[in-house]
Amino acid sequence: MPRIITIGREFGSGGRELGRRIADDLKIAYYDNEIITRIAERTDLSEDYVKHVMESEPSALLPITVGRSFYMRMDPVMEQNNAIYREQSHLILELAEKSDCVIVGRSADYILRQMQPFRLFVYAQKEHKLERCRKRAAEQEHFTDRELWRHIRDVDRRRARYYQFFTGQTWGDRLNYDLCINTSNAGIKELAEAITRLVG
Amino acid sequence: MPRIITIGREFGSGGRELGRRIADDLKIAYYDNEIITRIAERTDLSEDYVKHVMESEPSALLPITVGRSFYMRMDPVMEQNNAIYREQSHLILELAEKSDCVIVGRSADYILRQMQPFRLFVYAQKEHKLERCRKRAAEQEHFTDRELWRHIRDVDRRRARYYQFFTGQTWGDRLNYDLCINTSNAGIKELAEAITRLVG
Repeated sequence: MPRIITIGREFGSGGRELGRRIADDLKIAYYDNEIITRIAERTDLSEDYVKHVMESEPSALLPITVGRSFYMRMDPVMEQNNAIYREQSHLILELAEKSDCVIVGRSADYILRQMQPFRLFVYAQKEHKLERCRKRAAEQEHFTDRELWRHIRDVDRRRARYYQFFTGQTWGDRLNYDLCINTSNAGIKELAEAITRLVG
Repeated sequence: MPRIITIGREFGSGGRELGRRIADDLKIAYYDNEIITRIAERTDLSEDYVKHVMESEPSALLPITVGRSFYMRMDPVMEQNNAIYREQSHLILELAEKSDCVIVGRSADYILRQMQPFRLFVYAQKEHKLERCRKRAAEQEHFTDRELWRHIRDVDRRRARYYQFFTGQTWGDRLNYDLCINTSNAGIKELAEAITRLVG
């Protein structure tokens, strides 16, 4: 059984940094934005478009499993979006079967459930996320704390809806994960080392 | 700053075993039922009575901080229960100030918040908790799965109310903890080792 680590994460919690460090420590593959690039390659859609679909509200869409009516078959946008979701699932399965890896986001914990991945959820207190976002992104400098917090919540709300739409489960519900990690008071480096030892 | 580790845990999740192992690995004190024994010694109440109060629904009681009316002063049972809560807080603070330690339950994460303890919450899937309870307690053999699950849920419901009553916070809400640990798929020994390295 390959070592697969999936990471769900709140925006601004440091989940990507944690994932990258775990992958480096374990010397295994790391997938995050690469997934979008590869789907774009496979579907002949632009990266921007794939990213837009993945980050948009899926509430207007129907799950892939829902039977299609004639009307739906006529809607090329919905068809295209569903194609992106399907392609994502296939790609994530392919990547996980190919080699040990860390996959951030994309409902990978659910898509790979048959392979029993080690499922992390990374979160933090509000103040910590605000601080982290300020440090990371110079372009957010003109935001007030209130605006930045609204942005953080919007991203997470979209992630929660996307996850719910895709999996039928609740994003961030502890029962969907093996470990939920609060990065507010602990160093990401030390957390990565502890997880590496646990999984490795 | 002493190393203090607090453990909130679902019934049947293995939180006590995890706490005991962490304390052994770090060679620090471990407190769980001892707290009840010591409160009994201090308050001249029986251990059984202290245990009963600690495990009973606190909804009928008033928080310690609520001003007392003449009527309340007349109620010796309520007075006694409040005395137990007060004694518990004092004792937990004393223990934590005395030496590094692991404290299981008793809202210790909240009582010791000024000391910035490392706060764990231990949980597991339903099937795992049922199995663990069956293995641990021969006296539960006559229970059906349904009865045992009702018992597990009852204990956790009381813990949740006790915690809520005492702290004003939600029991099991990830933001109140540094790490939430699902013991369903991981070995408790390995988890304890990883946490020991992280905290030690």
